[in-house]
Amino acid sequence: MKTTQIKAILFDVFGTCVDWRSSVIQELDKLNHSKGLNIDCAAFADAWRGLYQPTMEQVRNGSRPWTILDVLHRESLDALVNQFGLDGMTDAELDHLNKVWHRLDPWPDVVRGLTRLKQHFVIAPLSNGNVALLVNMAKRAGLPWDLVLGAEVARCYKPQSEAYLAAARLLDVEPGQCIMVAAHNDDLVAARDCGMHTAFVCRPREHGPGQTSDLRASGDWDIVAGDFGALADQLC
Amino acid sequence: MKTTQIKAILFDVFGTCVDWRSSVIQELDKLNHSKGLNIDCAAFADAWRGLYQPTMEQVRNGSRPWTILDVLHRESLDALVNQFGLDGMTDAELDHLNKVWHRLDPWPDVVRGLTRLKQHFVIAPLSNGNVALLVNMAKRAGLPWDLVLGAEVARCYKPQSEAYLAAARLLDVEPGQCIMVAAHNDDLVAARDCGMHTAFVCRPREHGPGQTSDLRASGDWDIVAGDFGALADQLC
Repeated sequence: MKTTQIKAILFDVFGTCVDWRSSVIQELDKLNHSKGLNIDCAAFADAWRGLYQPTMEQVRNGSRPWTILDVLHRESLDALVNQFGLDGMTDAELDHLNKVWHRLDPWPDVVRGLTRLKQHFVIAPLSNGNVALLVNMAKRAGLPWDLVLGAEVARCYKPQSEAYLAAARLLDVEPGQCIMVAAHNDDLVAARDCGMHTAFVCRPREHGPGQTSDLRASGDWDIVAGDFGALADQLC
Repeated sequence: MKTTQIKAILFDVFGTCVDWRSSVIQELDKLNHSKGLNIDCAAFADAWRGLYQPTMEQVRNGSRPWTILDVLHRESLDALVNQFGLDGMTDAELDHLNKVWHRLDPWPDVVRGLTRLKQHFVIAPLSNGNVALLVNMAKRAGLPWDLVLGAEVARCYKPQSEAYLAAARLLDVEPGQCIMVAAHNDDLVAARDCGMHTAFVCRPREHGPGQTSDLRASGDWDIVAGDFGALADQLC
């Protein structure tokens, strides 16, 4: 890969840019304290995220029409309310909790790394999160995106190819002028299949201390980096 | 209008944020010098821009399918090449000239005004320019957008209502939580018809020294301001 041919760097967000699990746990822990609840925060975070792929799959396989992630997240939350002892919460409180996905904290290397990369390349999220989620997250966390791309703009969830190809098309670049950055090997397989370059950034604590997936690059990716600082070192 | 209800400020770009006419004239003037041409630069800029509405109208009225502005600009350029003595230019040179619309300079108050507004609101272009044009312009001119909205994302040219409504929908806000900012009264008429708030920023030299249109607010807009500094004074 010649760095000079690269125009845009596209980023997976959940897990790659932000620590969704710790952020969700932290917010649930605050709920426990403020409302005298006894939620198993880690189990709840994992169960909620566990419904992420199954609900998107209903959209991918055409069994339901295009639906944004905020709505899927809310349906998953509703499905878990009784099991985790949240059934006393009002609809407005559940709406607010659902938006915790807009309030995720970045990994500590992310803002500085993106800021360096932005000086040389177009940077954008290419996430399954909806546009409002990604914009609100960026405003709060200071993620300095040039623009917001991803599933809602493409009306298609990763890893379906149209999600990647729509991003390149909107930027008026070839897929080969893009690098997809992700902490998930399967995201990179799909991006490479579309002709994009690939960078794996390892996030061994995304799923907490017992993580077993994506602990190392499983493909011959163009770049493998420990964090966004190391990624920028290789690209800038 | 209560400022506290506002979440997003959406900006017309050509004329409102950037001085397209001086920028195009300046680039043509350089071409005259570098290639020994004798283009009437102001007449050329006005003629090129003069084809802007007619070509978009073909898309609006359905006589041609969705087509991005870069393509419409290039067709308009091709139509003017002989008349203005550019017929000696290569295809690659015309492609480069066509991208002058990605290289327009902002009015001097714009970057500072947007930077102030960005601290309080989501800011985005809501322009008929395509995404790549707006991203490349922003990178070069330092326009600090939170995200890029507009015609290409909506697949619909202003002043058709879907162009405005799609922007609010993607941001997951009501039209009434948005302010449309433009130097053109007709843009604000359309935005208000969609339920958006409106701000007129006068740009009396957009069309050069002989400008006759949009020299003053023709409607009862929520805000009327002389530049983006005055706009930020009223909103921040």
